[in-house]
Amino acid sequence: MTTLPPLSASAKADPAAVQAFPNARKIYQTGSRPDIRVPFREISQHATPDVDGEEPNPPITVYDTSGPYTDPDVIIDIRKGLAEVRTPWIDERDDTERLPGPSSAFGQARRHDPATDALRFDLKRLPRRAIAGRNVTQMHYARRGLVTPEMEYVAIRENLRRDAYLDSLKALGQKGERMYRQLTREHPGAPLGASIPTIITPEFVRDEIARGRAIIPANINHPELEPMIIGRNFLVKINANIGNSALQSDIAQEVEKMTWATRWGGDTVMDLSTGKNIHETREWIIRNSPVPIGTVPLYQALEKVDGKAEDLTWEIFRDTLIEQAEQGVDYFTIHAGVRLPFIPLTAERLTGIVSRGGSIMAKWCLAHHRESFLYERFEEICEIMKAYDVSFSLGDGLRPGSIHDANDEAQFAELRTLGELTQIAWKHDVQVMIEGPGHVPMHLIKQNMDEQLKHCHEAPFYTLGPLTTDIAPGYDHITSGIGAALIGWYGTAMLCYVTPKEHLGLPDKKDVKDGIITYKIAAHAADLAKGHPGAAIRDNALSKARFEFRWEDQFNLGLDPDTARDFHDQTLPKAAMKTAHFCSMCGPHFCSMKITQDVREYAAGRGVEAEKALQLGMQEKAVEFVKQGKQLYSRAK
Amino acid sequence: MTTLPPLSASAKADPAAVQAFPNARKIYQTGSRPDIRVPFREISQHATPDVDGEEPNPPITVYDTSGPYTDPDVIIDIRKGLAEVRTPWIDERDDTERLPGPSSAFGQARRHDPATDALRFDLKRLPRRAIAGRNVTQMHYARRGLVTPEMEYVAIRENLRRDAYLDSLKALGQKGERMYRQLTREHPGAPLGASIPTIITPEFVRDEIARGRAIIPANINHPELEPMIIGRNFLVKINANIGNSALQSDIAQEVEKMTWATRWGGDTVMDLSTGKNIHETREWIIRNSPVPIGTVPLYQALEKVDGKAEDLTWEIFRDTLIEQAEQGVDYFTIHAGVRLPFIPLTAERLTGIVSRGGSIMAKWCLAHHRESFLYERFEEICEIMKAYDVSFSLGDGLRPGSIHDANDEAQFAELRTLGELTQIAWKHDVQVMIEGPGHVPMHLIKQNMDEQLKHCHEAPFYTLGPLTTDIAPGYDHITSGIGAALIGWYGTAMLCYVTPKEHLGLPDKKDVKDGIITYKIAAHAADLAKGHPGAAIRDNALSKARFEFRWEDQFNLGLDPDTARDFHDQTLPKAAMKTAHFCSMCGPHFCSMKITQDVREYAAGRGVEAEKALQLGMQEKAVEFVKQGKQLYSRAK
Repeated sequence: MTTLPPLSASAKADPAAVQAFPNARKIYQTGSRPDIRVPFREISQHATPDVDGEEPNPPITVYDTSGPYTDPDVIIDIRKGLAEVRTPWIDERDDTERLPGPSSAFGQARRHDPATDALRFDLKRLPRRAIAGRNVTQMHYARRGLVTPEMEYVAIRENLRRDAYLDSLKALGQKGERMYRQLTREHPGAPLGASIPTIITPEFVRDEIARGRAIIPANINHPELEPMIIGRNFLVKINANIGNSALQSDIAQEVEKMTWATRWGGDTVMDLSTGKNIHETREWIIRNSPVPIGTVPLYQALEKVDGKAEDLTWEIFRDTLIEQAEQGVDYFTIHAGVRLPFIPLTAERLTGIVSRGGSIMAKWCLAHHRESFLYERFEEICEIMKAYDVSFSLGDGLRPGSIHDANDEAQFAELRTLGELTQIAWKHDVQVMIEGPGHVPMHLIKQNMDEQLKHCHEAPFYTLGPLTTDIAPGYDHITSGIGAALIGWYGTAMLCYVTPKEHLGLPDKKDVKDGIITYKIAAHAADLAKGHPGAAIRDNALSKARFEFRWEDQFNLGLDPDTARDFHDQTLPKAAMKTAHFCSMCGPHFCSMKITQDVREYAAGRGVEAEKALQLGMQEKAVEFVKQGKQLYSRAK
Repeated sequence: MTTLPPLSASAKADPAAVQAFPNARKIYQTGSRPDIRVPFREISQHATPDVDGEEPNPPITVYDTSGPYTDPDVIIDIRKGLAEVRTPWIDERDDTERLPGPSSAFGQARRHDPATDALRFDLKRLPRRAIAGRNVTQMHYARRGLVTPEMEYVAIRENLRRDAYLDSLKALGQKGERMYRQLTREHPGAPLGASIPTIITPEFVRDEIARGRAIIPANINHPELEPMIIGRNFLVKINANIGNSALQSDIAQEVEKMTWATRWGGDTVMDLSTGKNIHETREWIIRNSPVPIGTVPLYQALEKVDGKAEDLTWEIFRDTLIEQAEQGVDYFTIHAGVRLPFIPLTAERLTGIVSRGGSIMAKWCLAHHRESFLYERFEEICEIMKAYDVSFSLGDGLRPGSIHDANDEAQFAELRTLGELTQIAWKHDVQVMIEGPGHVPMHLIKQNMDEQLKHCHEAPFYTLGPLTTDIAPGYDHITSGIGAALIGWYGTAMLCYVTPKEHLGLPDKKDVKDGIITYKIAAHAADLAKGHPGAAIRDNALSKARFEFRWEDQFNLGLDPDTARDFHDQTLPKAAMKTAHFCSMCGPHFCSMKITQDVREYAAGRGVEAEKALQLGMQEKAVEFVKQGKQLYSRAK
């Protein structure tokens, strides 16, 4: 079933991925050097009609993960991959060397296997590795006080051009004063220990990375990457999983899912392929991906031993790490916390070990009745990671697979081990994040975050969901979106999405989008709850558009303009209706927003009358209205 | 566009609403008298194959809101309406009388208007009212110490036949011990002040109603109703809104939406129609509804004055209350907390007054510059309510319409007023619940619950969402599902659903179902978090089915078997695949659940080996495995 992307046709990307967003444009903010060009999406708005004519509504800048695909000035050719934005930065650091070719045995074998000729991405350049004795991780640079271009890039990215927006509001002058006040207003957050500065500086980024509290997953062999940061004191991020299995999907489809996932807001993408040709599939994905790519190398290692967990060896696993590191994978899930003595702790579980990686390692440990080679060889793994700057995503192989099994001793024993491993990785200056559950009822979610912060020394938490109930197969994007919003608020740095197909089948493009949008909601709800500076700007702008019946602006400022427009058009299809001062819920005659506008006008009218009365010396009458409000206010307190 | 349900055809209900649930049957539990027959859905499960042959999995009983539609022994004819289950109970109380006909002017006019002949539901019986001087509310009975059949009914309903399930597990004998332990296990909850007994007795129900902490919305003119209870110490409920507008929908469609909403779990339904013929639409809905019907009488009153809020009068409103009470509406949303002095408090809002009822009353108050007639006439309204046992749903007319406006003084001033009104209603023994927001970021939700409990004396809270962000039009079932789960955990008794079409258009059947399932998830996640006794039984059973690859059972135990099955079949369509011991995510060769089963068998095998070793006197070797586990356990503590 695996097929080559038809090269003549798919030199172009999926047309759906390159379509412009409505009334929006791709913009770049340049950093301290011209090759730091940070992408954003700028959404224009229509003006609000008022008595004097029109009151302009300044454009809104939003975070943009869609990469060059949505830049009309870039010619996309997926056979060639994306442009290498990071190459000058890596070159300048002068601590890496080009290898004569892939150094993994598997990478070499695939390269010379004629059977893969037709599938192979035609990469002209050679892989890079750190010069012997050098450490090329962002953490290493950060700890030596170096602010890398990657760090400056993410600092600019996190600030979302808020200054430009505030300036454009200020430029409206006196007339815009109320707008400024309303559109920039945010509730004080409940950060629960997070400490997010109003302006993210490159130095702050450096400091957070040096402390291990944030990571920039950025393999030196993924120069196409647009750097992003994962940490509790930054915007909450989301990951989308893609990947084929032995049963379904092909290379072109997976590249399409990746561009689709990043279009809608995937901050990173994990390629969890387990079928054939995963080496080649991965190459196509990475070469065309503007976001960090994560993998679980154990899956491929298992393929190499024909699915027999007990036949796995450190040598095969090691070769797989090098193979993937040289392709440019940005982070590896490593289930090094599944230790032999923890396995019996799962015996009384309802759903045993549900993590694929966890169950493979458990089977291996039991088969040989010995400690996990991932745990025993952890320092050797660190040596590989730091030669390419691959970040750890320390896997939770013993995560609960049901509400019943949540927060049990197996899970927390593993978590504490991940904390130990974090300190070993940090000794090597290797970047680390920690994976988390799983299935957890709402009231037990906080404990997961607290334990993680305590035992893993504030390394970023990266959680799957958690699902807050087991009773809704087909809707687990929602059961888990609830848990994701909560744990995001509590401090999780990146939320791994769950699609509606979870537990049931492989997600198609619709499922990927549903998962992404649900998790963008969860992440943003978390940002609002934490009081992330500026997070409410988009909510405020959209609500103003909604209140003013600027339908198009309401659609365009939302996470998914296409669906919003489509839903609206189902009831009120006529174009004229999009500027109508009512909506389909109540009809033209009976609209609460319309009535509120009338109320405002009425109140404003009374204000004018009050002023007149005041000029005529009728003070008592003039203050009547205002007084009533004030009395109420003080009484109500 | 309004059309009569084609009588010949729609004598039958919507075929989708009467379809049996897969591998499930309708059962009734009889109470202390034969006419108390409480409906449930019982879902059968397949056995688990094991070494001895098979281990049976007892059936699971779930709450059933679908009414007689899913009872194959009942012949449905929507021209006749549902059977009158409550009539004997109401008769026996001997405190009501039949009226000669509708006593509202409007009801009489419509009855004799030939233009409505073709639309009219042919109701043979006459409306009831309390005998002069009598009070027929459930609260009145409760306070006098009377346990009504309605109270016994809901007590049985809330217990979900848990005893029968426990008995069937116990009947499995020694073999079933582990199953019993696992399937009944629940995490201790975080009830945050809720106090839910393990077994709900009729006396407990009576006491909760007497205290005002729960309500049974049950108009004496809605004898078709299957009683249900709304209160913090009971299962969290959900409401579905339906209703046509001037632009869309007809009577048959609305009846269909009601049966569709109750099929999927709507505990109550609000008819928010604002178009033409809303009197007749409502009659059809109530006569065919097994769940309580709520309305906002103000909407119809406004229709009667051609949409001009300032033309509303107490007399028109009063006549509307009586009209609807005599049709059998079970609860009225009354926006009596929108007081004149609160209106200026909304002037600095971003989205003003977004509640329809709130904006109508605000407009009226400003137009006349006088206090709301709903507030001033509140005792008179109570007199009407208690003559029919219509419950109050005290409306939050000043709820926030955006994150920006959450938890402001306007909102809380109104909430405190609703608390005052609650005490007035209780003086009349009229049942009350309190409506809540709206749009609220996650970290400000708890304050809403705390303020409500404090100022409204623990009257049940009934909230819309709340939506936790404004940026996802088209996905507001999800933005609000997050908030609903949270506030349900915190103590809200009923969650008013939001559909994907919120802010954009009128929901169709797909939207209604999406909204319902999302809110069933939120309500159940809240029950789990509160530690509702027995709430985890369904999660545990479904997770066991999932772990054992009992695909059909996994689908059938879920909230939406159809969608789960459909999603599964998209990837693995063959019937044989439904019994396959793997799933499409990983393929046949590579499945974590399969591996875990192997691990268990392996571990069990070692147990046998250990026993053998023990018999041979090799104690040290025998305990090696077990010891490792124990050491870990104590170390990890």
